[in-house]
Amino acid sequence: MAAEQDPEGLAAARPLLTDFYQATMALGYWRAGRARDVADFELFFRRCPFGSAFTLAAGLRDCVRFLRAFRLRDADVQFLASVLPPDTDPAFFKHLRTLDCSEVTVRALPEGSLAFPGVPLLQVSGPLLVVQLLETPLLCLVGYASLVATNAARLRLIAGPEKRLLEMGLRRAQGPDGGLTASTYSYLGGFDSSSNVLAGQLRGVPVAGTLAHSFVTSFTGSEVPPDPMLAPASGEGPGVDLTANTKMWLERVCAILGLGVQEPHPGERTAFVAYALAFPQAFQGLLDSYNVRRSGLPNFLAVALALGELGYRAVGVRLDSGDLLQQAQEIRGVFRTIAAQFQVPWLESVPIAVSNNVDEKELTRLSQEGSEVNVIGIGTSVVTCPQQPSLGCVYKLVSVGGQPRMKLTEDPEKQTLPGNKVAFRLLGSDGSLLMDLLQLAEELPPQAGQELRVWPRGAQEPCTVRPAHVEPLLQLCIQQGQLCEPLPSLAESRALAQLSLSRLSPEHRRLQSPARYQVALSEKLHALVDSFHVEGLP
Amino acid sequence: MAAEQDPEGLAAARPLLTDFYQATMALGYWRAGRARDVADFELFFRRCPFGSAFTLAAGLRDCVRFLRAFRLRDADVQFLASVLPPDTDPAFFKHLRTLDCSEVTVRALPEGSLAFPGVPLLQVSGPLLVVQLLETPLLCLVGYASLVATNAARLRLIAGPEKRLLEMGLRRAQGPDGGLTASTYSYLGGFDSSSNVLAGQLRGVPVAGTLAHSFVTSFTGSEVPPDPMLAPASGEGPGVDLTANTKMWLERVCAILGLGVQEPHPGERTAFVAYALAFPQAFQGLLDSYNVRRSGLPNFLAVALALGELGYRAVGVRLDSGDLLQQAQEIRGVFRTIAAQFQVPWLESVPIAVSNNVDEKELTRLSQEGSEVNVIGIGTSVVTCPQQPSLGCVYKLVSVGGQPRMKLTEDPEKQTLPGNKVAFRLLGSDGSLLMDLLQLAEELPPQAGQELRVWPRGAQEPCTVRPAHVEPLLQLCIQQGQLCEPLPSLAESRALAQLSLSRLSPEHRRLQSPARYQVALSEKLHALVDSFHVEGLP
Repeated sequence: MAAEQDPEGLAAARPLLTDFYQATMALGYWRAGRARDVADFELFFRRCPFGSAFTLAAGLRDCVRFLRAFRLRDADVQFLASVLPPDTDPAFFKHLRTLDCSEVTVRALPEGSLAFPGVPLLQVSGPLLVVQLLETPLLCLVGYASLVATNAARLRLIAGPEKRLLEMGLRRAQGPDGGLTASTYSYLGGFDSSSNVLAGQLRGVPVAGTLAHSFVTSFTGSEVPPDPMLAPASGEGPGVDLTANTKMWLERVCAILGLGVQEPHPGERTAFVAYALAFPQAFQGLLDSYNVRRSGLPNFLAVALALGELGYRAVGVRLDSGDLLQQAQEIRGVFRTIAAQFQVPWLESVPIAVSNNVDEKELTRLSQEGSEVNVIGIGTSVVTCPQQPSLGCVYKLVSVGGQPRMKLTEDPEKQTLPGNKVAFRLLGSDGSLLMDLLQLAEELPPQAGQELRVWPRGAQEPCTVRPAHVEPLLQLCIQQGQLCEPLPSLAESRALAQLSLSRLSPEHRRLQSPARYQVALSEKLHALVDSFHVEGLP
Repeated sequence: MAAEQDPEGLAAARPLLTDFYQATMALGYWRAGRARDVADFELFFRRCPFGSAFTLAAGLRDCVRFLRAFRLRDADVQFLASVLPPDTDPAFFKHLRTLDCSEVTVRALPEGSLAFPGVPLLQVSGPLLVVQLLETPLLCLVGYASLVATNAARLRLIAGPEKRLLEMGLRRAQGPDGGLTASTYSYLGGFDSSSNVLAGQLRGVPVAGTLAHSFVTSFTGSEVPPDPMLAPASGEGPGVDLTANTKMWLERVCAILGLGVQEPHPGERTAFVAYALAFPQAFQGLLDSYNVRRSGLPNFLAVALALGELGYRAVGVRLDSGDLLQQAQEIRGVFRTIAAQFQVPWLESVPIAVSNNVDEKELTRLSQEGSEVNVIGIGTSVVTCPQQPSLGCVYKLVSVGGQPRMKLTEDPEKQTLPGNKVAFRLLGSDGSLLMDLLQLAEELPPQAGQELRVWPRGAQEPCTVRPAHVEPLLQLCIQQGQLCEPLPSLAESRALAQLSLSRLSPEHRRLQSPARYQVALSEKLHALVDSFHVEGLP
């Protein structure tokens, strides 16, 4: 059904999706005879987003697709020639035509892993010119994916495991592919489904949806369905005229609710009947086109009960305005009354879906104890990440030809950690996460049960730690251009994300003022950083 | 060079880039025999973003491309069949395969026009089922484009006409195409160029860039360029060893600046020489990899002066950290000193480019009287629109079969304006913008010089206005699927945006607490809205 193969969904992610300075630097390296020097870059972020203590790593699947297809076409090289100086040596452009990622090696945090500041999400090694060109597209593919996955994870933590979360932010995304990326990675971060059909088709995200006000308001009540007859769900017995039966049920419902039978809008009812004829097994009503209590709700009930007689059960109602929590309580109350009155117990538990600018605060309210809301549609607040719309990932050179490199700069936050590194997660005996450790690749890995002296980042003094378990963090993903093993499916990465979050201690997982999760340097790495500070400016 | 034809740049914008409920409603319309009813939708927003009183209309060129290519392929219909109920009538899917936009008509505000709340950016008419399906993709294509263009326009207004603004936010965008959209429309809104090469190739946006710290830190100083010789700019005379000449100039520069000749980082200098050998006509230096004053600046000057001897002029320096304004003053001072000392007057005015999380506040500082900053690179703040990351456009049904439709709802802000409408801009005798007027299509257009009674939105009473000039706002863009005339180029739309903004009065144009621009309804339209309130709930 859904296809992870995606020949077009990432069409915009091609080699020229890069900053122009990557092309000018490429020429600089080439002219300096350094195009094929072996270089190592690390992609990481400096602070977790939204005030969280954690980030979810995401975007790797898009990076892998991009790297495997990386090749400059003639038209690309011609375009570069048109914007680089006219006296550029033609041999440079010839060289560009030969480039691919067949000599590139990538280590990565698996998608859905917890990521922390300074710990690489990706380590990219290969010819200097090529791995430099990869900077912008990799940042573009990892940054927003990890941001929106983390945002979705926060919303899932607020909502708890029971509420169904529907991402519906395509219309608020940064253009077409912004929407595709958002839908994919909010699912990874913990949403249940997306309204975005293309994300279903290309990425296998479960798709879901209801109906819009335009469908309801497009009917006046004078429309006559070409075929108003509906057969029973069992397939046995004669069909009935759903319009006529709905009318009959409306009278009964209005009598119980104390409404005049003229009050519910006839166009809305006709729209609901039309929808029910198209979706007898999946009928749902959007209640607030005119007036929820006096129109939307009785019209929905009339159609649902008429369908119920035929053995069909309505699957939901939706609200898109007003006080969502309060209305859900009232609607549930009405459902219970009507269910009791007509002995249709299934009606009591028809899911109530809500939407309308739901953000973290409103979601907290909708998820409180006793809330009758079952499904929550979130668009803008998940897709645009309004609390912090970018993650600020960076991609930094850490060594060339095996020699460590460091950007010193006068701004301490912008300094980088030099050298080829490996990363470990240190755990306590109860499996709790203690800290992440960065050390040089040449060092022996830390041993479970042995005491280590490490330098927590930002601390002036070292400390000791005795991990009960040690987990290596970065996995070899692409070796010399070859994918080492198939990537997990999106659903598997989604499961890993939920597992990863469950292992995080409550003080690191909480969303407001969480405890900071420590990332530490080995003594040797710390000494290397120090040596740059001393020798950096000779 | 650049190609507006764009077979792949919008590959993600295809018919399934839509919310699932559009597909369910399509089935509902079809089952109700209403698929081919003629319907009219309007796309508009309810509030201008960022506290501005204006918005720039943008995204139309992407909508036109999308609509002209709109056609569901077999694979698309098969996917829809896999997510719609299994008992769906196969004739529905047959119908889907026949769909295109050959019966769709679009009126639109030209890109770069001023847009105001409630005034349609697009009016879309055609078969109900088709124009319903278009909702999400059109919202996706217009919403962010208009948002980022407006954001860019604000930044341009702050910077004034002289500063060069470079958009460099690709790495902070919502995935690949989010970046492409951002680069395209921030150019439309007033930026001079983008770092995004793909936006240059596919959209004709001027591309620009400098170099990154990784280029600088990749050199230690021990590297020897394969060919250190550079010929004079004139092409006449012998070449010189640029490395050797740079060393010589470094001594002179250090002597004047009171620095030891060992202080400037040799790796940084080697990087600059490498860059200069690749770009003798376009040499620029990134000054803050180690230390601006003691390393970046003297190294840059040494290379620039060595190049100068050969008749080449450096094109710029860039700073990416620290107090950008303050450093720019100091650097300009050093340029002046050195220019006077060595009688190289061109050095005085070498452009200073800055970047580093520049937002509206910092841009205001950098643009103040006397600032020595010439070029400002902005990424996150333009692309993610952090002050308000979505515009909140909506797409509402206003009539079916010529009969007006209205969503009443209990939330007054979410009510729509019914009926087929036309929009006019009313101007004073000095060409100033007075207000926008919405009226029914059947009404006579307002006449210049004649007094009108209108209902400003939100007002309880009508008012009179006598416009000296009247401009119709919406242009017929696509008639029955045919493009009526070629769209303006992106550069032309950019020019229109600047012209539009210049016509806005200062009180509407100012960015903080601007006066609200009035949008009014004709008496007849106002009466129609009223009639719905009376009759809406029978």
